[in-house]
Amino acid sequence: MSDINKLIQEIVKFRDERDWEQFHNSKDLALALSIESSELLELFLWKDSEDFKIDKLKEELADVLMYAFLIANKHDLSIAEIIQEKMRKNAEKYPVDKSKGNATKYNEL
Amino acid sequence: MSDINKLIQEIVKFRDERDWEQFHNSKDLALALSIESSELLELFLWKDSEDFKIDKLKEELADVLMYAFLIANKHDLSIAEIIQEKMRKNAEKYPVDKSKGNATKYNEL
Amino acid sequence: MSDINKLIQEIVKFRDERDWEQFHNSKDLALALSIESSELLELFLWKDSEDFKIDKLKEELADVLMYAFLIANKHDLSIAEIIQEKMRKNAEKYPVDKSKGNATKYNEL
Amino acid sequence: MSDINKLIQEIVKFRDERDWEQFHNSKDLALALSIESSELLELFLWKDSEDFKIDKLKEELADVLMYAFLIANKHDLSIAEIIQEKMRKNAEKYPVDKSKGNATKYNEL
Repeated sequence: MSDINKLIQEIVKFRDERDWEQFHNSKDLALALSIESSELLELFLWKDSEDFKIDKLKEELADVLMYAFLIANKHDLSIAEIIQEKMRKNAEKYPVDKSKGNATKYNEL
Repeated sequence: MSDINKLIQEIVKFRDERDWEQFHNSKDLALALSIESSELLELFLWKDSEDFKIDKLKEELADVLMYAFLIANKHDLSIAEIIQEKMRKNAEKYPVDKSKGNATKYNEL
Repeated sequence: MSDINKLIQEIVKFRDERDWEQFHNSKDLALALSIESSELLELFLWKDSEDFKIDKLKEELADVLMYAFLIANKHDLSIAEIIQEKMRKNAEKYPVDKSKGNATKYNEL
Repeated sequence: MSDINKLIQEIVKFRDERDWEQFHNSKDLALALSIESSELLELFLWKDSEDFKIDKLKEELADVLMYAFLIANKHDLSIAEIIQEKMRKNAEKYPVDKSKGNATKYNEL
């Protein structure tokens, strides 16, 4: 299954069975997303770049994605649309000829 | 369009046109994800929970999702599978009868 | 000058001249601290471990420290006391003989 | 005791007894700082702004400060100097007359 909307509905169902929507204001959802991203980051602390446990990575990445999807759902955002729109903006900030093979931030290009 | 795999392919195409995969080791992708989540969080700093600019939220959420999808892609993870697997674990940690209407973390239940 | 309390008083004076204490509830101070730490982290994104700009590091570290000191000040915490207390706990979690030359997290020792 | 330098020396002694300096490259110290700040933030997740456990706050704030102090120590930075320098810059970005009672970010003033 690779349909985002069906997946989001499963997450919403899990949330609603526990009556958790009442806690999910926009600010706390942003906190939760940031905290879960930091837990994913912790897997790499004091480690080489590819030295991590894949099972932990799966769990932390799933947590990040669930909160990201809940934020999109709360604000009726289409995940495909916001990503495609951001890629259009990024394409202007990072034109292929200037940014090819170059990790410099656009405002330093 | 709500097919995750097609969306990920668009992101990968954007990355490859710029030859950026060379920078995308697992640790730096985790840094990028954490940094973008923090930028989303910043929209709410010193603000009430629903006082934010939706256009900024769309952009920051798109950034978060793009890095999350790139991490999944790098490790050949199915987004649906890791989320469904995590929900199964969460269902054990947070059984409906104990967690209904309760935001307490599972290890304090 | 290396007296923390005098330094904190300078920061408090700066804050009070701008009448900013009204925004500094405990939760938003924690957000600010996390956001500034992430900005410091961003200096290292896509970079080798010692490849960073020292002037930027100074600024971001100062931001982190100012919010950390404001949190301590708000709750009447002695910085020396909380650090010394934490080191006592860490000494139990990480006894020298088990943790010497070992970055393993204590719950995995 | 409120002398920062003496406090930093205690932290360095703790580190050196465990032979941990070898892990403390600049990038991983920045990761550690960000991760600890996120743990402090987690104390406020799904909570009202002043609803937190002070004992947990003390511990997480101590962790944040220890890593911030280790970063300063690694780069021979004077904590008082970098904070005073940053306050001078902030005083220009946030002049009292424009920023009094106003939490708006300087680039939106």
